[in-house]
Amino acid sequence: MFETSSSLGTHILVEAYDCEPEKLDNLKGVQSAMVEAAELAGATVLDVAFRQFAPQGISGVVIISESHLTIHTWPEFGYAAIDLFTCGTKADPWKAFKYITSYLKAKKVTTMELKRGSLPLELSEQRLNIDKLDSELTEVEGRV
Amino acid sequence: MFETSSSLGTHILVEAYDCEPEKLDNLKGVQSAMVEAAELAGATVLDVAFRQFAPQGISGVVIISESHLTIHTWPEFGYAAIDLFTCGTKADPWKAFKYITSYLKAKKVTTMELKRGSLPLELSEQRLNIDKLDSELTEVEGRV
Repeated sequence: MFETSSSLGTHILVEAYDCEPEKLDNLKGVQSAMVEAAELAGATVLDVAFRQFAPQGISGVVIISESHLTIHTWPEFGYAAIDLFTCGTKADPWKAFKYITSYLKAKKVTTMELKRGSLPLELSEQRLNIDKLDSELTEVEGRV
Repeated sequence: MFETSSSLGTHILVEAYDCEPEKLDNLKGVQSAMVEAAELAGATVLDVAFRQFAPQGISGVVIISESHLTIHTWPEFGYAAIDLFTCGTKADPWKAFKYITSYLKAKKVTTMELKRGSLPLELSEQRLNIDKLDSELTEVEGRV
Protein backbone atom coordinates (compact mmCIF):
# COMPACT_ATOMS: atom_id res chain seq x y z
CA MET A 1 0.00 0.00 0.00
CA PHE A 2 2.87 2.37 0.81
CA GLU A 3 6.21 2.82 -0.91
CA THR A 4 8.22 2.87 2.28
CA SER A 5 6.83 1.35 5.40
CA SER A 6 7.37 -0.24 8.75
CA SER A 7 4.82 -2.40 10.51
CA LEU A 8 3.13 -2.23 13.88
CA GLY A 9 2.94 -5.94 14.52
CA THR A 10 3.71 -9.52 13.60
CA HIS A 11 0.94 -12.08 13.19
CA ILE A 12 1.68 -15.78 12.97
CA LEU A 13 -1.15 -18.01 11.78
CA VAL A 14 -0.61 -21.60 12.84
CA GLU A 15 -2.33 -24.72 11.55
CA ALA A 16 -1.49 -27.49 14.01
CA TYR A 17 -2.42 -31.00 12.86
CA ASP A 18 -2.07 -34.42 14.43
CA CYS A 19 -2.12 -33.00 17.94
CA GLU A 20 -3.02 -35.16 20.93
CA PRO A 21 -6.83 -35.11 21.16
CA GLU A 22 -6.76 -35.26 24.98
CA LYS A 23 -4.62 -32.13 25.10
CA LEU A 24 -6.94 -30.34 22.66
CA ASP A 25 -9.96 -31.01 24.85
CA ASN A 26 -8.46 -30.10 28.21
CA LEU A 27 -9.71 -26.61 29.01
CA LYS A 28 -7.45 -25.93 31.99
CA GLY A 29 -4.43 -27.35 30.21
CA VAL A 30 -4.92 -25.35 27.02
CA GLN A 31 -5.61 -22.15 28.94
CA SER A 32 -2.51 -22.55 31.10
CA ALA A 33 -0.40 -23.38 28.07
CA MET A 34 -1.61 -20.33 26.14
CA VAL A 35 -0.89 -18.03 29.10
CA GLU A 36 2.53 -19.65 29.53
CA ALA A 37 3.15 -19.20 25.79
CA ALA A 38 2.31 -15.50 26.08
CA GLU A 39 4.65 -15.05 29.02
CA LEU A 40 7.47 -16.95 27.34
CA ALA A 41 7.03 -14.66 24.34
CA GLY A 42 7.66 -11.71 26.65
CA ALA A 43 4.07 -10.45 26.41
CA THR A 44 1.99 -8.96 29.21
CA VAL A 45 -1.25 -10.86 29.84
CA LEU A 46 -4.25 -8.60 30.47
CA ASP A 47 -7.22 -10.91 30.18
CA VAL A 48 -8.20 -14.46 29.27
CA ALA A 49 -11.47 -15.93 28.02
CA PHE A 50 -11.75 -19.65 27.33
CA ARG A 51 -14.75 -21.85 26.52
CA GLN A 52 -15.34 -25.56 26.39
CA PHE A 53 -17.79 -26.71 23.75
CA ALA A 54 -20.14 -29.67 23.69
CA PRO A 55 -19.44 -32.36 22.76
CA GLN A 56 -15.79 -31.29 22.44
CA GLY A 57 -13.46 -28.48 21.48
CA ILE A 58 -12.12 -25.33 23.06
CA SER A 59 -12.00 -21.68 22.04
CA GLY A 60 -9.76 -19.32 23.89
CA VAL A 61 -8.28 -15.85 23.78
CA VAL A 62 -5.42 -14.32 25.69
CA ILE A 63 -5.49 -10.54 25.42
CA ILE A 64 -2.02 -9.14 25.85
CA SER A 65 -0.73 -5.57 25.92
CA GLU A 66 0.85 -6.44 22.59
CA SER A 67 -2.44 -7.65 20.90
CA HIS A 68 -3.67 -11.24 21.28
CA LEU A 69 -3.18 -14.98 21.16
CA THR A 70 -6.12 -17.18 20.20
CA ILE A 71 -6.75 -20.90 19.85
CA HIS A 72 -9.62 -23.01 18.56
CA THR A 73 -9.38 -26.77 18.87
CA TRP A 74 -11.13 -29.68 17.16
CA PRO A 75 -10.09 -32.76 19.14
CA GLU A 76 -12.08 -34.95 16.73
CA PHE A 77 -9.70 -33.93 13.95
CA GLY A 78 -6.55 -33.53 16.05
CA TYR A 79 -6.45 -29.94 14.82
CA ALA A 80 -5.96 -26.48 16.32
CA ALA A 81 -6.10 -23.07 14.66
CA ILE A 82 -3.73 -20.78 16.55
CA ASP A 83 -3.09 -17.06 16.07
CA LEU A 84 -0.18 -15.28 17.68
CA PHE A 85 -0.32 -11.54 17.12
CA THR A 86 2.18 -9.29 18.89
CA CYS A 87 2.90 -5.63 18.38
CA GLY A 88 6.08 -3.78 19.15
CA THR A 89 9.53 -5.27 19.32
CA LYS A 90 9.66 -6.70 22.85
CA ALA A 91 7.48 -9.78 22.42
CA ASP A 92 8.53 -12.65 20.17
CA PRO A 93 5.51 -14.63 18.91
CA TRP A 94 7.76 -17.45 17.67
CA LYS A 95 8.57 -18.31 21.29
CA ALA A 96 4.85 -18.68 21.93
CA PHE A 97 4.60 -20.79 18.77
CA LYS A 98 7.29 -23.20 19.91
CA TYR A 99 5.75 -23.65 23.33
CA ILE A 100 2.12 -24.20 22.33
CA THR A 101 2.81 -26.53 19.40
CA SER A 102 5.14 -28.55 21.60
CA TYR A 103 2.52 -28.66 24.37
CA LEU A 104 -0.12 -29.96 21.96
CA LYS A 105 2.38 -32.45 20.53
CA ALA A 106 1.50 -31.35 17.01
CA LYS A 107 3.11 -33.59 14.42
CA LYS A 108 2.30 -31.45 11.37
CA VAL A 109 2.40 -27.68 11.50
CA THR A 110 2.08 -24.99 8.87
CA THR A 111 2.70 -21.34 9.64
CA MET A 112 2.26 -18.02 7.92
CA GLU A 113 3.89 -14.85 9.25
CA LEU A 114 2.26 -11.58 8.30
CA LYS A 115 3.16 -8.02 9.11
CA ARG A 116 0.18 -6.02 10.35
CA GLY A 117 -0.22 -2.27 10.16
CA SER A 118 2.18 -1.12 7.48
CA LEU A 119 2.79 2.57 7.91
CA PRO A 120 3.95 5.09 5.35
CA LEU A 121 7.27 6.84 5.91
CA GLU A 122 5.90 9.92 7.64
CA LEU A 123 3.88 7.81 10.09
CA SER A 124 6.84 5.50 10.68
CA GLU A 125 8.92 8.50 11.73
CA GLN A 126 6.07 9.64 13.93
CA ARG A 127 5.99 6.16 15.48
CA LEU A 128 9.72 6.25 16.18
CA ASN A 129 9.19 9.49 18.03
CA ILE A 130 6.29 7.98 19.93
CA ASP A 131 8.37 4.91 20.79
CA LYS A 132 11.09 7.18 22.12
CA LEU A 133 8.55 9.10 24.15
CA ASP A 134 6.99 5.87 25.43
CA SER A 135 10.33 4.63 26.67
CA GLU A 136 10.62 7.79 28.75
CA LEU A 137 7.21 7.39 30.31
CA THR A 138 5.77 4.77 32.61
CA GLU A 139 2.18 4.03 31.70
CA VAL A 140 -0.06 2.05 34.01
CA GLU A 141 -1.52 0.13 31.12
CA GLY A 142 0.16 1.27 27.95
CA ARG A 143 0.23 -0.76 24.81
CA VAL A 144 3.55 -1.66 23.26
CA MET B 1 -0.91 -30.28 3.03
CA PHE B 2 -3.57 -32.67 1.72
CA GLU B 3 -4.49 -33.68 -1.82
CA THR B 4 -8.23 -33.40 -1.31
CA SER B 5 -9.55 -31.20 1.40
CA SER B 6 -12.30 -29.09 2.82
CA SER B 7 -11.78 -26.44 5.46
CA LEU B 8 -13.25 -25.84 8.89
CA GLY B 9 -13.31 -22.06 8.75
CA THR B 10 -12.77 -18.79 6.94
CA HIS B 11 -10.46 -16.13 8.33
CA ILE B 12 -10.46 -12.60 6.94
CA LEU B 13 -7.54 -10.40 7.95
CA VAL B 14 -8.40 -6.74 7.53
CA GLU B 15 -6.03 -3.77 7.46
CA ALA B 16 -8.21 -0.68 7.85
CA TYR B 17 -6.44 2.62 7.20
CA ASP B 18 -7.58 6.24 7.28
CA CYS B 19 -10.32 5.48 9.80
CA GLU B 20 -11.83 8.23 11.93
CA PRO B 21 -9.55 8.53 14.99
CA GLU B 22 -12.46 9.38 17.29
CA LYS B 23 -14.21 6.15 16.31
CA LEU B 24 -11.02 4.15 16.88
CA ASP B 25 -10.66 5.47 20.41
CA ASN B 26 -14.27 5.06 21.54
CA LEU B 27 -14.37 1.88 23.63
CA LYS B 28 -18.14 1.58 23.91
CA GLY B 29 -18.63 2.40 20.24
CA VAL B 30 -16.06 -0.11 18.98
CA GLN B 31 -17.34 -2.84 21.30
CA SER B 32 -20.94 -2.31 20.23
CA ALA B 33 -19.94 -2.23 16.57
CA MET B 34 -17.96 -5.46 16.85
CA VAL B 35 -20.85 -7.24 18.56
CA GLU B 36 -23.25 -5.88 15.94
CA ALA B 37 -20.87 -7.04 13.21
CA ALA B 38 -20.85 -10.54 14.70
CA GLU B 39 -24.64 -10.65 14.85
CA LEU B 40 -25.02 -9.34 11.31
CA ALA B 41 -22.65 -12.09 10.19
CA GLY B 42 -25.05 -14.62 11.69
CA ALA B 43 -22.67 -15.58 14.48
CA THR B 44 -23.57 -16.36 18.09
CA VAL B 45 -21.81 -14.11 20.60
CA LEU B 46 -20.54 -15.94 23.68
CA ASP B 47 -18.22 -13.48 25.35
CA VAL B 48 -16.59 -10.09 24.86
CA ALA B 49 -13.40 -8.59 26.29
CA PHE B 50 -12.38 -5.05 25.40
CA ARG B 51 -9.63 -2.81 26.76
CA GLN B 52 -8.84 0.86 26.45
CA PHE B 53 -5.15 1.71 26.45
CA ALA B 54 -3.34 4.80 27.66
CA PRO B 55 -2.88 7.21 26.07
CA GLN B 56 -5.06 5.81 23.29
CA GLY B 57 -6.08 2.67 21.42
CA ILE B 58 -8.41 -0.24 21.97
CA SER B 59 -8.02 -4.01 21.91
CA GLY B 60 -11.09 -6.17 21.80
CA VAL B 61 -12.24 -9.71 21.25
CA VAL B 62 -15.68 -11.11 20.54
CA ILE B 63 -15.74 -14.85 21.13
CA ILE B 64 -18.42 -16.45 19.01
CA SER B 65 -19.61 -20.04 18.73
CA GLU B 66 -18.03 -19.93 15.28
CA SER B 67 -14.53 -18.78 16.51
CA HIS B 68 -13.70 -15.09 17.03
CA LEU B 69 -13.61 -11.48 15.89
CA THR B 70 -10.80 -9.25 17.12
CA ILE B 71 -9.81 -5.63 16.70
CA HIS B 72 -6.80 -3.54 17.69
CA THR B 73 -6.86 0.17 17.02
CA TRP B 74 -4.18 2.85 16.73
CA PRO B 75 -6.10 6.14 16.63
CA GLU B 76 -2.82 8.03 16.22
CA PHE B 77 -2.33 6.32 12.86
CA GLY B 78 -5.99 6.04 11.86
CA TYR B 79 -5.42 2.29 11.68
CA ALA B 80 -7.16 -0.85 12.88
CA ALA B 81 -6.10 -4.50 12.57
CA ILE B 82 -9.26 -6.59 12.38
CA ASP B 83 -9.62 -10.37 12.27
CA LEU B 84 -12.89 -12.08 11.40
CA PHE B 85 -12.69 -15.84 11.82
CA THR B 86 -15.83 -17.92 11.45
CA CYS B 87 -16.23 -21.67 11.24
CA GLY B 88 -19.01 -23.62 9.65
CA THR B 89 -21.26 -22.42 6.86
CA LYS B 90 -23.88 -20.39 8.71
CA ALA B 91 -21.90 -17.26 9.53
CA ASP B 92 -20.62 -14.95 6.80
CA PRO B 93 -17.55 -12.97 7.95
CA TRP B 94 -17.83 -10.64 4.96
CA LYS B 95 -21.03 -9.20 6.44
CA ALA B 96 -19.07 -8.39 9.60
CA PHE B 97 -16.34 -6.89 7.44
CA LYS B 98 -18.73 -4.55 5.66
CA TYR B 99 -20.29 -3.35 8.88
CA ILE B 100 -17.15 -2.70 10.91
CA THR B 101 -15.15 -1.00 8.14
CA SER B 102 -18.17 1.17 7.38
CA TYR B 103 -18.57 2.02 11.07
CA LEU B 104 -14.93 3.08 11.34
CA LYS B 105 -15.24 5.05 8.07
CA ALA B 106 -12.10 3.39 6.76
CA LYS B 107 -10.98 4.97 3.49
CA LYS B 108 -8.32 2.39 2.61
CA VAL B 109 -8.81 -1.28 3.31
CA THR B 110 -6.84 -4.36 2.40
CA THR B 111 -8.12 -7.85 3.08
CA MET B 112 -6.82 -11.37 2.93
CA GLU B 113 -9.13 -14.37 3.11
CA LEU B 114 -7.66 -17.61 4.35
CA LYS B 115 -9.16 -21.04 4.83
CA ARG B 116 -8.34 -22.52 8.22
CA GLY B 117 -8.27 -26.20 9.09
CA SER B 118 -7.89 -28.01 5.81
CA LEU B 119 -8.93 -31.61 6.29
CA PRO B 120 -7.96 -34.66 4.26
CA LEU B 121 -10.69 -36.53 2.41
CA GLU B 122 -11.41 -39.11 5.09
CA LEU B 123 -11.77 -36.45 7.77
CA SER B 124 -13.92 -34.32 5.45
CA GLU B 125 -16.32 -37.23 5.10
CA GLN B 126 -16.26 -37.71 8.85
CA ARG B 127 -17.06 -34.00 9.23
CA LEU B 128 -20.02 -34.28 6.85
CA ASN B 129 -21.40 -37.04 9.01
CA ILE B 130 -20.82 -34.96 12.14
CA ASP B 131 -22.52 -31.96 10.51
CA LYS B 132 -25.50 -34.14 9.69
CA LEU B 133 -25.60 -35.45 13.23
CA ASP B 134 -25.27 -31.93 14.65
CA SER B 135 -28.24 -30.72 12.65
CA GLU B 136 -30.30 -33.45 14.28
CA LEU B 137 -29.25 -32.51 17.77
CA THR B 138 -29.78 -29.40 19.81
CA GLU B 139 -26.71 -28.63 21.87
CA VAL B 140 -26.83 -26.10 24.67
CA GLU B 141 -23.53 -24.66 23.61
CA GLY B 142 -22.36 -26.49 20.54
CA ARG B 143 -19.84 -25.05 18.16
CA VAL B 144 -20.70 -24.72 14.50
